[in-house]
Amino acid sequence: MPTTVNRQIRLRRHPVGMPRPDDFDLVESPLPSPGAGEVLCRTVYLSLDPYMRGRISGVRSYAQGVEPGQVIVGATVGEVIESKHPGLGRGDIVLGYGGWQSHAVAKGGGLRKLDPKQAPVSTALGVLGMPGMTAYVGLLDIGQPRPGETVVVSAASGAVGSAVGQIARIKGARAIGIAGSQDKCDYVVRELGFDQCVNYKTGDLAATLRAACPSGIDVYFENVGGDVLRAVMTLLNQNARIPLCGLISEYNATGSTPGPNLRPLLFNRVLLKGFIVSDHLSRLGEFLKDCGGWLREGRLKHREDVVAGLEKAPEAFIGLLQGKNFGKLLVQVGEDPTK
Amino acid sequence: MPTTVNRQIRLRRHPVGMPRPDDFDLVESPLPSPGAGEVLCRTVYLSLDPYMRGRISGVRSYAQGVEPGQVIVGATVGEVIESKHPGLGRGDIVLGYGGWQSHAVAKGGGLRKLDPKQAPVSTALGVLGMPGMTAYVGLLDIGQPRPGETVVVSAASGAVGSAVGQIARIKGARAIGIAGSQDKCDYVVRELGFDQCVNYKTGDLAATLRAACPSGIDVYFENVGGDVLRAVMTLLNQNARIPLCGLISEYNATGSTPGPNLRPLLFNRVLLKGFIVSDHLSRLGEFLKDCGGWLREGRLKHREDVVAGLEKAPEAFIGLLQGKNFGKLLVQVGEDPTK
Repeated sequence: MPTTVNRQIRLRRHPVGMPRPDDFDLVESPLPSPGAGEVLCRTVYLSLDPYMRGRISGVRSYAQGVEPGQVIVGATVGEVIESKHPGLGRGDIVLGYGGWQSHAVAKGGGLRKLDPKQAPVSTALGVLGMPGMTAYVGLLDIGQPRPGETVVVSAASGAVGSAVGQIARIKGARAIGIAGSQDKCDYVVRELGFDQCVNYKTGDLAATLRAACPSGIDVYFENVGGDVLRAVMTLLNQNARIPLCGLISEYNATGSTPGPNLRPLLFNRVLLKGFIVSDHLSRLGEFLKDCGGWLREGRLKHREDVVAGLEKAPEAFIGLLQGKNFGKLLVQVGEDPTK
Repeated sequence: MPTTVNRQIRLRRHPVGMPRPDDFDLVESPLPSPGAGEVLCRTVYLSLDPYMRGRISGVRSYAQGVEPGQVIVGATVGEVIESKHPGLGRGDIVLGYGGWQSHAVAKGGGLRKLDPKQAPVSTALGVLGMPGMTAYVGLLDIGQPRPGETVVVSAASGAVGSAVGQIARIKGARAIGIAGSQDKCDYVVRELGFDQCVNYKTGDLAATLRAACPSGIDVYFENVGGDVLRAVMTLLNQNARIPLCGLISEYNATGSTPGPNLRPLLFNRVLLKGFIVSDHLSRLGEFLKDCGGWLREGRLKHREDVVAGLEKAPEAFIGLLQGKNFGKLLVQVGEDPTK
């Protein structure tokens, strides 16, 4: 029997420091109805990503923030259960931006229909979605690795980092990961084929990283900031490139933490470029062609960390900010009809 | 009667923190003789520039360092007094890299002959020399200001900064200077035509700068680092560009001082690029054509701060690191035969 209830996770208050479960509210509201040109979707997968910390922070960022009482935003894969859009019908699986809720109404034109025969639909939130495209454009357009160069990526077992290292390898570069546990490092080297991976939680990171990068670092794909960035700064080669994708270690700081001394960027003529994947949508076609192909060929591997139940989203999100996830973090909100 | 003595300033020891006069030695040595293909020059002007602090520091930088006992390096304008090079004769005025000494032997092929009719020969060390070219390539190739954009430059009355702001104006951008005294700010606005100039030593720099940049900052030409950079970081527009030319406020730090938090570079998709003018020598012809033309047309003004006597070089250099100079700092080592 179809439900008449929409379960939602709303922001109770802007978190201060690391978010806590009671910064979120689980509420029930009536199921919305689609208007002309709209569809109603049942959420199958919700993507949890580090950028969401900025959205709920209450401070100016690169996109509209979430205010208390609003549903948290997020990319979703859903099943159309009611359609008033000519191009979509019941049962279609679509990529959208439904947020942390069991159902969402969306304009049909803003959704992308997924073909389960091409790839598992959940990959549209990971390796063939925003995280994969972030890796692709950041590494190739800003990092521009050349064969034989050394590419270092932090958060190497995560959704973005795991793609960065594998694409670097595909392009003929050495890939060195940095991750937060021995398990993650083993996975990155043995499963994903990185040349080496350094556990930033053990030993002297600068020394371990130096040993892993005997020819220095040509490209550093930055996801974390903080101590990891400081260690990398001492190893940058001349004309190194730093795609600045994220600074997750700093997202929960309550003040403005100092950054690294910039002298190595001056002396080594380094390029550092902040970027947001949504500025690069013109690359979507090439990204899907390249990464979809590498995925089908088995050259681009990925791992999903799937948490069951919308109500688990806050806890899973807090774990993401603490590095507890292992692979692309998804919440399974409802049954996947393609499985 | 020609002298037979070469007066030299040699490094006594690598300075720790701010250099002191007794880090330098003034010594006399016999006049060197040119070999085949070489010339002997009498130094007329010695250029003092912030980069020299790195050269005498004893730590790895982007160029060979000066060791204790060696003559300090530096660009010079000199008069050829003896030539064993077919292209140069006695009385020719040349740009070279003679260092902190009254005479120097150099390979003739490494010198550039100057034409006193084109511009005063001292400008080859300033507005038409390395500082001017640093401003030109850093601003135009990395900063890429568009008409109507806001360009901010620190050390605005200095050799590089003064050219940056004027070239920005020539290209149709707003030019906002940051300098260390009211006199310097007045000069930058009234003589050089910057739109505004902020004195970083008085009041709340972030607030004053915000008032001077109501549309935010599109290009920040960085010469100083430290507090000035931190204030600028709060005002960067989306897709801002930061040519990273120098960090003079940090050159005398004895440890690694922290840098600014990098989140604004991420959120605003900022490009930051360290550069060294010597990587861009292919632009020399265009630079001399453009800046030489602007200089002759009176659109590019410059100011020299000339200290008389080689023995004054250490004190003048220390003053440069403290911001005491006002304009391009030169040491007049010998008589200028073109005046």
